[in-house]
Amino acid sequence: MTVGILGGGQLGLMLAESLRKLDTPVLVLEPDDEAPCAQRLAGIIPAAFDDAAALKDFFARCTRVTYDSENIPSAPLAPFADKLAPSLRVLQVSQHRAAEKTFLATHGFGPVQFSVVKATDSLHDAVRRFGTPCIVKSSLGGYDGKGQHKVKHDADVRALPDTGSEWVLEDVLTLESEVSCIVGRDDGGRAFTFPVFENVHTHHILDVTVLPARIDPSLQNEARERALAIAKALDVVGLLTVEFFVGTGRDGARKLFVNELAPRVHTSGHVTRQACTMSQFDILARITSGVPITAPELHPGGWCMGNLLGDVWLAQGRTGGALDLSSWEHFPQVVDVYLYGKREARTKRKMGHFVVHAETPNEAVDVAKRFREALMSRG
Amino acid sequence: MTVGILGGGQLGLMLAESLRKLDTPVLVLEPDDEAPCAQRLAGIIPAAFDDAAALKDFFARCTRVTYDSENIPSAPLAPFADKLAPSLRVLQVSQHRAAEKTFLATHGFGPVQFSVVKATDSLHDAVRRFGTPCIVKSSLGGYDGKGQHKVKHDADVRALPDTGSEWVLEDVLTLESEVSCIVGRDDGGRAFTFPVFENVHTHHILDVTVLPARIDPSLQNEARERALAIAKALDVVGLLTVEFFVGTGRDGARKLFVNELAPRVHTSGHVTRQACTMSQFDILARITSGVPITAPELHPGGWCMGNLLGDVWLAQGRTGGALDLSSWEHFPQVVDVYLYGKREARTKRKMGHFVVHAETPNEAVDVAKRFREALMSRG
Repeated sequence: MTVGILGGGQLGLMLAESLRKLDTPVLVLEPDDEAPCAQRLAGIIPAAFDDAAALKDFFARCTRVTYDSENIPSAPLAPFADKLAPSLRVLQVSQHRAAEKTFLATHGFGPVQFSVVKATDSLHDAVRRFGTPCIVKSSLGGYDGKGQHKVKHDADVRALPDTGSEWVLEDVLTLESEVSCIVGRDDGGRAFTFPVFENVHTHHILDVTVLPARIDPSLQNEARERALAIAKALDVVGLLTVEFFVGTGRDGARKLFVNELAPRVHTSGHVTRQACTMSQFDILARITSGVPITAPELHPGGWCMGNLLGDVWLAQGRTGGALDLSSWEHFPQVVDVYLYGKREARTKRKMGHFVVHAETPNEAVDVAKRFREALMSRG
Repeated sequence: MTVGILGGGQLGLMLAESLRKLDTPVLVLEPDDEAPCAQRLAGIIPAAFDDAAALKDFFARCTRVTYDSENIPSAPLAPFADKLAPSLRVLQVSQHRAAEKTFLATHGFGPVQFSVVKATDSLHDAVRRFGTPCIVKSSLGGYDGKGQHKVKHDADVRALPDTGSEWVLEDVLTLESEVSCIVGRDDGGRAFTFPVFENVHTHHILDVTVLPARIDPSLQNEARERALAIAKALDVVGLLTVEFFVGTGRDGARKLFVNELAPRVHTSGHVTRQACTMSQFDILARITSGVPITAPELHPGGWCMGNLLGDVWLAQGRTGGALDLSSWEHFPQVVDVYLYGKREARTKRKMGHFVVHAETPNEAVDVAKRFREALMSRG
């Protein structure tokens, strides 16, 4: 029994730590020798995700293989699909925006109103038909806001190439909040969700995750039920993170919309390491090790996970490595700081995170903001 | 900044994981190439604890050095005492039973009634003077009940050599329970205790740790205050685990007695990884990394940590490695299983542990016992 992880970032590292608790041998395939796993784990295979020979060797040595990102080429994985969890189909659906939206709409899972624009179609005409304002998203490879354009006027759309790329057009919601829900589902079909997380983004990058989410309990239940139904429809074995918008669309109805799917451990799920009795990493470790799963519970109080981007290092005059954490003394509600060991600090690069436990979600968010400010003022 | 750990067992491994979260580089000195750290971490120095050249190199590369056991020779560490945390004196006091008892008695910290027998003294005469029943403990090197003899009759003492070893004689208490309290203390003198843990031993080896401890709150407060006072008197920088007996001695008074000191992360503290907002490993990582500490809090409910000895593997017909965990499905209250990756299962060898979260401490203990029985019946 050996579990393989395609991708050795911080998510892969935390998954590897959970796998080792079960004494499941772990192999990680990761091309970047500065990635968190490469810095901290023995037994990394340093190869590209489309290196056919390396993949053949890697899969031969693994009982089951999962991935810490959906931005890996799926075609080279086809010969090894029987060992992939979640499956190749789940990976393909979630990494291709048009396929994802079409799947969601076809099954009645309520995506934001959208239209697919093929590479041979005229994007300009399509936007005029769809109507502005809208968001133009590339069908492949976008994350953290990359490959997205908000189009308000005709001039905005004329700045984009008319043909040659596949796009998805999306309605612009009057957005109230964003939430995510992680489903765990094992190969015996046992499934549950973690509690619903509220996510606040800044410049399209996750800034803080808040728990419990500050939205109606009925909407939270709806999110959990819909996430479970999506995981079942896709026959997910592993984790499926479903990202939702709460907002009002063109038809004027306030609703829960599915934004996108990530069939893997998720940045918003870092908070589960402290806030829940079992973490997302522990649950995926059980699933991939063939150990049947049970549902985690949420500890009382308010929780907030704050991302630490490279900007914090730069504010401290550091180029990477450790941080000056001396101000932690004044924040007893900060219960964890996890730095990923990335050597080079760059603006907007995810370099670490921390978790706050307070009486209420609002208080937790407030402490998180003040803690980050205190870190950034240690320059 | 690099933190060294003398000893690469499971306690050292979990400490290393906490240190890496702060991006503090870790070096481990461990002679056994099958120890948990050697199996799972890069950068192990495979040398004996009294290898002067290896120690010199090791300390030269470390900013600060701690240890995961007090059963390491202290004399070879003397040249490097300025980097040791807790200090050489704390290590020496805690590894030498006569020195430990004498320290506790001198400072009024309430050890069990005892008498020191020097190597040149007659043990037989000393026992007769002290009176039976009593417990005869070797002054050096005992743990998990090794080097201990219960003496009821004159014939029992005559079976032991009369001179040549240093011993400590101890009163036999009418024992109600055993508890432990872990103090964290940083180099700024900030100090707190974890909640008091109740420990149940079987054949002198920790069987389960229960939280909250099922003893009067007033005794728990007394244990916390006494543990803090001991840590302050010893000027501990790091962790100090104080083990207590609750019972009645020769004078008929029901009291809290200090049994022994362990200046390190402790097996009873495994439960802090789930039951508290910060673990003992996280706190020692902060102290040794020079990050000021704050106090952890206890999550509500009842908690129980159960040790997994080699006997569980042997009952499953396994010689080591992973366990069959399929029965976990029926125990949703089991929130963590941590196997240490030891290759060879031996009876009474600590190979892993698990943690239960339930409504009450009694329920947690009950679930722990049933879970372990279920594991052992998967032969």
